Amino acid sequence: MNNPIKIAVDAMGGEDSPNKVLKGIEIHNTTTQNIIYNIFGNKNSINPIIQKLNIPKNIFNIIHTENYIKDEDSPLTAAKKGKDTSMWMSIESLKNNNSDAIISAGNTGALFVIAKLNLKMIDKIEKPALSALWPNKNGMNVVLDLGANIECNEKNLVDFSLMGSALHKSLFDEEDAKVAILNIGSEETKGNNVIKNTYQILNENKNSLFQFKGYVEGNQIMDGNVNVIVTDGFTGNIALKTAEGTANFISSELKYALNSTWIGKISALLNIKNLKKFKKKLDPRLYNGAILLGLDKPVIKSHGSTDEVGFANSLQVCEKIIKSNLIGKIKKNII
Amino acid sequence: MNNPIKIAVDAMGGEDSPNKVLKGIEIHNTTTQNIIYNIFGNKNSINPIIQKLNIPKNIFNIIHTENYIKDEDSPLTAAKKGKDTSMWMSIESLKNNNSDAIISAGNTGALFVIAKLNLKMIDKIEKPALSALWPNKNGMNVVLDLGANIECNEKNLVDFSLMGSALHKSLFDEEDAKVAILNIGSEETKGNNVIKNTYQILNENKNSLFQFKGYVEGNQIMDGNVNVIVTDGFTGNIALKTAEGTANFISSELKYALNSTWIGKISALLNIKNLKKFKKKLDPRLYNGAILLGLDKPVIKSHGSTDEVGFANSLQVCEKIIKSNLIGKIKKNII
Repeated sequence: MNNPIKIAVDAMGGEDSPNKVLKGIEIHNTTTQNIIYNIFGNKNSINPIIQKLNIPKNIFNIIHTENYIKDEDSPLTAAKKGKDTSMWMSIESLKNNNSDAIISAGNTGALFVIAKLNLKMIDKIEKPALSALWPNKNGMNVVLDLGANIECNEKNLVDFSLMGSALHKSLFDEEDAKVAILNIGSEETKGNNVIKNTYQILNENKNSLFQFKGYVEGNQIMDGNVNVIVTDGFTGNIALKTAEGTANFISSELKYALNSTWIGKISALLNIKNLKKFKKKLDPRLYNGAILLGLDKPVIKSHGSTDEVGFANSLQVCEKIIKSNLIGKIKKNII
Repeated sequence: MNNPIKIAVDAMGGEDSPNKVLKGIEIHNTTTQNIIYNIFGNKNSINPIIQKLNIPKNIFNIIHTENYIKDEDSPLTAAKKGKDTSMWMSIESLKNNNSDAIISAGNTGALFVIAKLNLKMIDKIEKPALSALWPNKNGMNVVLDLGANIECNEKNLVDFSLMGSALHKSLFDEEDAKVAILNIGSEETKGNNVIKNTYQILNENKNSLFQFKGYVEGNQIMDGNVNVIVTDGFTGNIALKTAEGTANFISSELKYALNSTWIGKISALLNIKNLKKFKKKLDPRLYNGAILLGLDKPVIKSHGSTDEVGFANSLQVCEKIIKSNLIGKIKKNII
């Protein structure tokens, strides 16, 4: 049997933690084996919950600390809180090779800063990027950067193409990675200079990791013709959140329409199976979390507001990233 | 009786023109009075259609020309095609004060360039902006810029706030205009320097046209707490198209879910009235078109792919803009 995979879990961040974190571990554990969960947090909150769950004692360690980072802490405040917070300690366990990846549902800015303070960048990558999964008609997109870097140059965007493709290959091995740059038109002449220069570089440097497909417009992100969408952190953040806002708006309008009359209520009941199928496909818990790329160890951020099912999905992302050697894939393909 | 409002209509642009344009005029005419439509285009295509429609002869003029701009023409090609195209002639009729506003469902880039060649900018406004309507939970947003200017400085964004608010007041007189800048966070420290400087200027210069509400994130655009969303043309274009793509994706998934089994089909039939209500509220024809702001005459772009109902809605936007003296409102409030 191979050595077990060790995941560092910050148990204290996000809504309803450590409850959802521990239940997420219970769910994830039923789908896999040979994982050790190194759980960082307050044992007085963790122990009463974990004792009631179906998690074998030999697959987890609790590393006790009372200090933790709050969701409302600024990244600076968080970093100053120091080395005995659950987030810092879980990241430090990567640095010390006691864990293979870290996951937290806590404060994103703090996670980003503390990870950068403790972990090395991959050689030749200048900026880390925040990436996330986003559904398309045929499967799943990787989209990056989502807010780590407000301004990016062509080298950064080229790096993002590479890192995003490596992530896509790690998670969806059977598919080819197809990269496109997010732009306001599909003609070569569109966009700002950084975008045009990135286009040139990617078009001229063929590689074995991904196919370069040129530009993609906002309305084509979900078409499924490409699956790695590259953009600067400002634009990516606006696009992701606009999609989220639009989906929420439509869901609430639909809910209202289906419930606004008696006949609506009855037929909505009849329809419940189909609507559930629909809801399941669009369930944001499926796409939960973001992956910080560019550091030489995997750092995974679960949504603060997700539940145990979402957290379990992010644990699965951790597992796939480690098993598929994401970091090795990135290093091997740096241009 | 007041002088009639004169609308210059480019009959030749977009899918299914001049058919949808003329039918759009027929629909619009049933909702209003005292409008003259100056219709520019090929009389050999226009006459056979208009004769079959219920449009009184005394409310339209056909100004014949055989030349027109194609959807695939580049803005430069379009401008070179010259002064006898239906688009050029309809814009020229504004310049000569023969019409009060121009509407076209044709080539956006060409409309933009030909309008700039023929019309003056409003004094002290440096860049024109493309604005559009976008639904929110309580009513309608004006969003700008949507692609006219890839890069904008703080003066441009301040101008957009003013022009967008004037447009919102013109279309939805009973509501207060509430401006927000699109950003990746709601704290004052977020965003790039242009955004932060715009925040400062708008925060310090109170005015009677609009309330300044600070920043809005992508997921809050449709919340209804603000109704004038200001951003550069690159970001605005990505946001609008991402929202469009998300809405299309969800609609097609929903359609699939509701039709994928017999019981689904039957209950979808029962539900049809409510789903229609839902569809109506999200009908893109309601928000059809874009308004080019910053020129000293109103230039309205209808979607190329809309139908007669969408075109009629854009004609109503023209009418409201003229009646409410949009250009005067902008001039009066320039900072």
